[in-house]
Amino acid sequence: MSIQKPKGTQDLLPGVVEKWQYIEEKARDVCRRFNYREIRTPIFEHTELFQRGVGDTTDIVEKEMYTFSDKGDRSMSLRPEGTAGVVRAYVENKLYGEPDINKLYYIGPMFRYEQPQAGRYRQFHQFGIEAIGSVDPSLDAEVIAMGYLFYKEIGLQGVKVEINSVGNPSCRSVYREELQKFFAPVKDKLCKDCQSRYDRNPMRILDCKKDQEYGIGAPSILDFLDEECSTHFGKVQRHLTDMGIEYVINPRMVRGLDYYTHTAFEYKAAGIGAIDTISGGGRYNGLVGTIGGSSVDQPGVGFGLGLERVLLVLEAQGVAVPGVRPLDAYVIGMGEAAENEVAKQLFALRSAGLTVEKDYLGRKMKAQMKSADRFAAKFTIILGEDELNRGTVILKKMATGEQEEVKLESLAETLKSKLEQ
Amino acid sequence: MSIQKPKGTQDLLPGVVEKWQYIEEKARDVCRRFNYREIRTPIFEHTELFQRGVGDTTDIVEKEMYTFSDKGDRSMSLRPEGTAGVVRAYVENKLYGEPDINKLYYIGPMFRYEQPQAGRYRQFHQFGIEAIGSVDPSLDAEVIAMGYLFYKEIGLQGVKVEINSVGNPSCRSVYREELQKFFAPVKDKLCKDCQSRYDRNPMRILDCKKDQEYGIGAPSILDFLDEECSTHFGKVQRHLTDMGIEYVINPRMVRGLDYYTHTAFEYKAAGIGAIDTISGGGRYNGLVGTIGGSSVDQPGVGFGLGLERVLLVLEAQGVAVPGVRPLDAYVIGMGEAAENEVAKQLFALRSAGLTVEKDYLGRKMKAQMKSADRFAAKFTIILGEDELNRGTVILKKMATGEQEEVKLESLAETLKSKLEQ
Repeated sequence: MSIQKPKGTQDLLPGVVEKWQYIEEKARDVCRRFNYREIRTPIFEHTELFQRGVGDTTDIVEKEMYTFSDKGDRSMSLRPEGTAGVVRAYVENKLYGEPDINKLYYIGPMFRYEQPQAGRYRQFHQFGIEAIGSVDPSLDAEVIAMGYLFYKEIGLQGVKVEINSVGNPSCRSVYREELQKFFAPVKDKLCKDCQSRYDRNPMRILDCKKDQEYGIGAPSILDFLDEECSTHFGKVQRHLTDMGIEYVINPRMVRGLDYYTHTAFEYKAAGIGAIDTISGGGRYNGLVGTIGGSSVDQPGVGFGLGLERVLLVLEAQGVAVPGVRPLDAYVIGMGEAAENEVAKQLFALRSAGLTVEKDYLGRKMKAQMKSADRFAAKFTIILGEDELNRGTVILKKMATGEQEEVKLESLAETLKSKLEQ
Repeated sequence: MSIQKPKGTQDLLPGVVEKWQYIEEKARDVCRRFNYREIRTPIFEHTELFQRGVGDTTDIVEKEMYTFSDKGDRSMSLRPEGTAGVVRAYVENKLYGEPDINKLYYIGPMFRYEQPQAGRYRQFHQFGIEAIGSVDPSLDAEVIAMGYLFYKEIGLQGVKVEINSVGNPSCRSVYREELQKFFAPVKDKLCKDCQSRYDRNPMRILDCKKDQEYGIGAPSILDFLDEECSTHFGKVQRHLTDMGIEYVINPRMVRGLDYYTHTAFEYKAAGIGAIDTISGGGRYNGLVGTIGGSSVDQPGVGFGLGLERVLLVLEAQGVAVPGVRPLDAYVIGMGEAAENEVAKQLFALRSAGLTVEKDYLGRKMKAQMKSADRFAAKFTIILGEDELNRGTVILKKMATGEQEEVKLESLAETLKSKLEQ
């Protein structure tokens, strides 16, 4: 039996890969305009980084990482998400010493050992941004606006923004106590996960799909924000309104980890059926210190978007995404002398910037014309022996069938001007 | 101590990452013109793929792979090179069933556990192409020409092309016997590696840096090519000459593995000192069958270029590579009302396609102007309270210092037209 790709991974082939190129180019273009610059961190990191930066009690770190020992017996893991590596690089390379804040983006593969299902792979791909170094609420709004604009520009329909504030550790501890009081009477009825959340992180009970009914009437975090948190959240809303971005406040949107502070947000869109969360992000004023130590503590805010998810929703919504680019011309030679000339002319045309192709299978004229059609060639260039003796070729426009004799030495120039017409 | 990146890996930060983006864009652009389409295969594969497709007696597979067991106890390895995965995908996705040949390219990370040194990393990056499905010698020439054009267009100076033919398994077996006869008298003087090569693959003795002196006067593979191989090699040369690509025939260029056939080639360039091989490739008519079985045997030809190497040689040659792109404008607000307006205008300008930035640190005007300078902003846009009351802003051209009052509602348009001047 021949060897297959690993379970839960994908081959992105021509015809599909163009959709990826398209959304990645859009992502890069949005980043350029918002002045985010790319950062590339290694595909694997010391396992300890994710234990510290993602959280060693999370499912991701406990169950889903690809962990291995390298030949120096150090525990390494394929990165399960993008933020920890970026923050590690920020600390290690002392980016906090720069006069301006750091606005960084990444696009690349991530790895989680999960049960594969529609749109969920063991190697998946994320586009994320991290803005590190400022507590300015306009930065939270900018991050939210940027993801929103990205979705809008790739053509996703009906994207909704939900926001919340998860406060800071101090107002959160008061809120947690209130939540525990609220859930105490029904504690035994909660699902097993939520019973353990009750002590560790009762906010996550609000998040649980199984225990929705018990959360009705629960106190809202927004009533427990201290003045700093409440002012911050108000300013974020003000900026979003100014920018014309509609949002809904969802006080039940919580975060599992302590280093998340202030703004949390999610994007929702109608996919195959119900309106669903497609991605999210938020402020993490405690993360840089968690990874780098208190001496380099710096506030941050960002998002991470799964590209598989983007493509799935685009497809479900029937949004057209650019496919394979057509050829400028397909070049056909008749006879051996002509075929040598085809190879030569092809290189000249390609050097001049044109996208051109030929046959490599010794096929007859008719089969070559079919090949030109499959590549959606705009023109064919035919090199016959008579024409070659005259130093000319036949240039044929495929859409109309019109053809003319063109001098070899001006072929690239003529073709370019015809393509621009 | 804070967590460091894994040994032998790199963080590519803003300021450096732009060089990578530049050479990758060039690579993609060359691929577009030559009608190569991207393929993306997983970062890890079943270990067996590399044992079969790279060779289980090679250093790469024996010593240098990052191999681990997944939770299903399957042996996986981070890919140490790009070709095996592409060929596996070609077979698994039945690309051989398509009417045209497959011209594929890849750009991405590869992994080898080697001792890190200048330009050699444990995570490194390759741009490679694989053209599968044709024995046409014009395809060999096209592949060689494409790498040559890529190097030329990124500005590498003095790239030389060396070519050879390694024949096919049948003419090679005759040649091997002749080589063994030639080396027999000095066999005991050869280095340890070459003594073992003497039986397994005597052609590789020609390649050994230690045993150069013993190779003088050795028979040339070119005298042992059969008619098919010799015709093929002649045509490759003819096409290269037609394309105007200078080359040197180097009959000592060999390949370690049996599935390499016909054309072998290398690119050389002067880096820090001597002229050195920067990359290479060749025809591999036996590889697809080795990976996919004889029923899907298809000829192939390709190259793989290390991007770290490209950047190292570019730097050694002092070739300028585009750096960070300057801002179109930096937007400064004076007073709280103005600052809210800044955030709003920023989003409008970015939505209109412009690259603009603001301060996020509550800095004074003067510090913001310095920040604008660091970002090489072409314009500053100043929102003062008086101007805002009039619905205007000050637009200042940084290069000349000239400034004018512009209406807010036409700001994007005015800025765009000034940028085009």
